[in-house]
Amino acid sequence: MIIFVDMDEVIADAYQAHIDIYNQEFNTQITVEECYGKEFWLVVPAAHQQSIKDHTRRDGFFQDLKLIEGSQQVLEELSKKHEVYIASAAMEFPQSLREKSDWLDEFFPFIPWQNRILCGNKHVLKGDVLIDNRSKNLEPFDGRSIMFTSPHNTNVNTFERANSWKDIADKLL
Amino acid sequence: MIIFVDMDEVIADAYQAHIDIYNQEFNTQITVEECYGKEFWLVVPAAHQQSIKDHTRRDGFFQDLKLIEGSQQVLEELSKKHEVYIASAAMEFPQSLREKSDWLDEFFPFIPWQNRILCGNKHVLKGDVLIDNRSKNLEPFDGRSIMFTSPHNTNVNTFERANSWKDIADKLL
Repeated sequence: MIIFVDMDEVIADAYQAHIDIYNQEFNTQITVEECYGKEFWLVVPAAHQQSIKDHTRRDGFFQDLKLIEGSQQVLEELSKKHEVYIASAAMEFPQSLREKSDWLDEFFPFIPWQNRILCGNKHVLKGDVLIDNRSKNLEPFDGRSIMFTSPHNTNVNTFERANSWKDIADKLL
Repeated sequence: MIIFVDMDEVIADAYQAHIDIYNQEFNTQITVEECYGKEFWLVVPAAHQQSIKDHTRRDGFFQDLKLIEGSQQVLEELSKKHEVYIASAAMEFPQSLREKSDWLDEFFPFIPWQNRILCGNKHVLKGDVLIDNRSKNLEPFDGRSIMFTSPHNTNVNTFERANSWKDIADKLL
């Protein structure tokens, strides 16, 4: 079985990184619970929204992301049974490419370079399962689309859902 | 129609770059005609072969590649009629990722980030045409596989072949 796994907000906690940077730079105490159902830039005052969008163009943003809990252990098990690919829509951010490669080397060394994809559109991927946090990627996928819960997608009801890597293990292991 | 186009030796002249670097550093005058049917590292003495293989790990190697003749013009026309994707097996060389993105910005700005793929294995790509110079990529592709002629593949007879971007235009425009 070929399984594609998104990076940001599926194995790498980009959403929390946005919150942390904003809280530090604007002296706020926003918690992730306040963000459910919204993109983070929509949580902050209009005058600050562009600064959120610019986070992903900063050097080091993707290098410093923390792991989503359980992603390492479950992906390592999945990799023993299935053909697991990391598929990240990273091409929008050229400075992220090397950082994402290095981050995978650090945390997911068991997924070799042959099984890593940095792309844009994901509808050209051919496989059995896509685990992603965005409807625009899950919608056109031919196989089984699993929405991984992220603060911004909690109100979406159109896909099979996984709330955690424990859920993924229950479904696919 | 979805068309995937490889980078090295299809739109970017990596083979000639290997020859040029070697000729300069070892004071030789090897021409591309002497290389037909062989990987370039097999053309040089055994003691020099590792140095050839290391070219692709050098900073700037991919940034400095020259264009394959006709690739810009034909791809620009193809992009108006078809969904054209660049698909390069670049993940083996982390330092190449940014260089390849920048190179595409410079020479193929009409192919947006959404249509760029840096990957490993290509058998997970779903589309209609793959233009590539390597059997290992063309073999498992589901659609129409077109081998783009490169010095190393001149003896391969198992695929539909394009010797130039003029050939591609005749076939697909």
